[in-house]
Amino acid sequence: MKKRPLRIKDIAEILQISVSTVSRALRDTYDVNPETKEKVLALANQLKYKPNFNAAALASGNTKNIGVVIPFITNYYFSTVISGIQEEAYTNGYNIILLVTNDSSERELSMIKNLSVTSLDGLLVSISSNSVMSNHFQELTEEGVPLVFFDRVPDDIVASKVLQDDFSGAFQATEHLILHGYTKIAHIAGSEHLSFTQRRLQGYVSALEKYDLPVRKEWIIYSGFSQQCGESDMNILLNMKEVPDAVFAVNDRKAVGAIQALKKRQIKVGSEFGVVGFTNDPISTIIDPALTTMEEPAFEIGKMSCSLLIKHITNKHFLPKEIVLPGRLIIRDSCLGASSSLID
Amino acid sequence: MKKRPLRIKDIAEILQISVSTVSRALRDTYDVNPETKEKVLALANQLKYKPNFNAAALASGNTKNIGVVIPFITNYYFSTVISGIQEEAYTNGYNIILLVTNDSSERELSMIKNLSVTSLDGLLVSISSNSVMSNHFQELTEEGVPLVFFDRVPDDIVASKVLQDDFSGAFQATEHLILHGYTKIAHIAGSEHLSFTQRRLQGYVSALEKYDLPVRKEWIIYSGFSQQCGESDMNILLNMKEVPDAVFAVNDRKAVGAIQALKKRQIKVGSEFGVVGFTNDPISTIIDPALTTMEEPAFEIGKMSCSLLIKHITNKHFLPKEIVLPGRLIIRDSCLGASSSLID
Repeated sequence: MKKRPLRIKDIAEILQISVSTVSRALRDTYDVNPETKEKVLALANQLKYKPNFNAAALASGNTKNIGVVIPFITNYYFSTVISGIQEEAYTNGYNIILLVTNDSSERELSMIKNLSVTSLDGLLVSISSNSVMSNHFQELTEEGVPLVFFDRVPDDIVASKVLQDDFSGAFQATEHLILHGYTKIAHIAGSEHLSFTQRRLQGYVSALEKYDLPVRKEWIIYSGFSQQCGESDMNILLNMKEVPDAVFAVNDRKAVGAIQALKKRQIKVGSEFGVVGFTNDPISTIIDPALTTMEEPAFEIGKMSCSLLIKHITNKHFLPKEIVLPGRLIIRDSCLGASSSLID
Repeated sequence: MKKRPLRIKDIAEILQISVSTVSRALRDTYDVNPETKEKVLALANQLKYKPNFNAAALASGNTKNIGVVIPFITNYYFSTVISGIQEEAYTNGYNIILLVTNDSSERELSMIKNLSVTSLDGLLVSISSNSVMSNHFQELTEEGVPLVFFDRVPDDIVASKVLQDDFSGAFQATEHLILHGYTKIAHIAGSEHLSFTQRRLQGYVSALEKYDLPVRKEWIIYSGFSQQCGESDMNILLNMKEVPDAVFAVNDRKAVGAIQALKKRQIKVGSEFGVVGFTNDPISTIIDPALTTMEEPAFEIGKMSCSLLIKHITNKHFLPKEIVLPGRLIIRDSCLGASSSLID
């Protein structure tokens, strides 16, 4: 059986000291007791410990390069987040290195493993949809690499995280449909594994429960995040025995796909059928009827994530923080009310 | 009077040798005659020559980092180009460093000047709209830094360039309007300084001339590239004494703005008034009527630019190339014909 490589955690367990002390001893920082440092180095040497991912270079703190790991960039939300990151990085004299995973966990892993060829001070990460294993990020944080997650964050790692308030946003969006007279509200969701998919689902469920509306499993459809997915999810709902009268979509692209499916069947969107999205993508003003949606603070999420990361880079003792930024409901024409009459 | 800093060109002139030989001698590459190298180094030393922009580090060719200078990223065209760049870079083991200028020549200059803090093997550049001075790029190429321009390229620098066929694209788009019976065709253009604005304008003018239609200066409106600019340009045209019956827009966002201005005045787009765009942005399928447009090969432009740059990085003798990629007319519903009757 192949032995698994030795990790910082193992050294910490043997010596009965904390992972961060071992990490700091290996990086030779000033704030470690000299005796402890000697013990750590001796053991690391004895056990032939080799840091993964060139973590020493990664954590050097003076390359003025920040890595940004994201699933996509041809996507309004992510490109706006990058703008926010770039703005904060530029102000503070950092460059950003872009690592686009194409939402593939294999590429994500390969990119992280090959980071050794570059020098970075830290990483901003939004994980890929199918990234169920986050060991590689766990190891990076154990090695003391400054790391901040945004939007698509793993639940099992202690690290700084910046999120929008998905629960409240989804709650408000669903409540808005309910208050406009819709009672059979479906949800077209995103990839089931992602925690923000779950948080938005919970917001949707809680709003239904508050108003004593039934939560029907068959009206919750998980799939991808594209417009095409929205269209096919909507078609599934429209082919059911009992058809809903409204839908809350996990993002605007899916909402737009849903509207197009509805329009193809001559169903009047905004009156007969209510639709609310999430993002405030520019397409939400172009689709007819214009989409009511929860605006995401994408630029601020980028700016805030980068600002937090710089704090971690410049102060190794800065404690992980979780920041949740609120969204804002933008009311347009796709949810005017079940009883409203629209001019055709 | 302040002396201007000594440049590689000056050394080349004094020694009567080529700029590239001086550049290679200073970078100590293998393929320079040892005597020549000695002469260059002696003179550089005597004249206290200091490379600008940390060009030596820039041209080192083994950092595996490529810098990408672009005006925006929250823009379908540029984010798709970056996807293409990223794909080619990833395949060849390069990382990309993103330098977003916000379309400001001041920020562009400051970013290029501060590149010394980083190490790059070369640069991919799309210049900002108001970047009338391209001295900073001229100097980089003189220093032997591998550099490829794409889309928004300066005319006065000899370097590799990758472009879409703007002239033919604009010609085809305008011809499509003419062949559908429109005779009073306006053009809402981009920023006047950019060469692609000029190339698209020329394509428009040539098509009108081919069909003996008059070119009317007041029907050519220069402004920015946003949807808002398209809407206000269209309003200017609609308030004229003689109103056009069709418009060719420099990009899809402006075309969408124009369509919205037309719809607000109850003018029937696609029959009464023809509109053709340029890009094939996803919004062109969402706007109603769906937009007929020239598709730009954005992903291929990114891939090709990056591939060319890698050739320059790995072979200092690779000669500059200009590559022009063709577009493709995508026919939808915004130009069905002046005499067509649309179901309302």
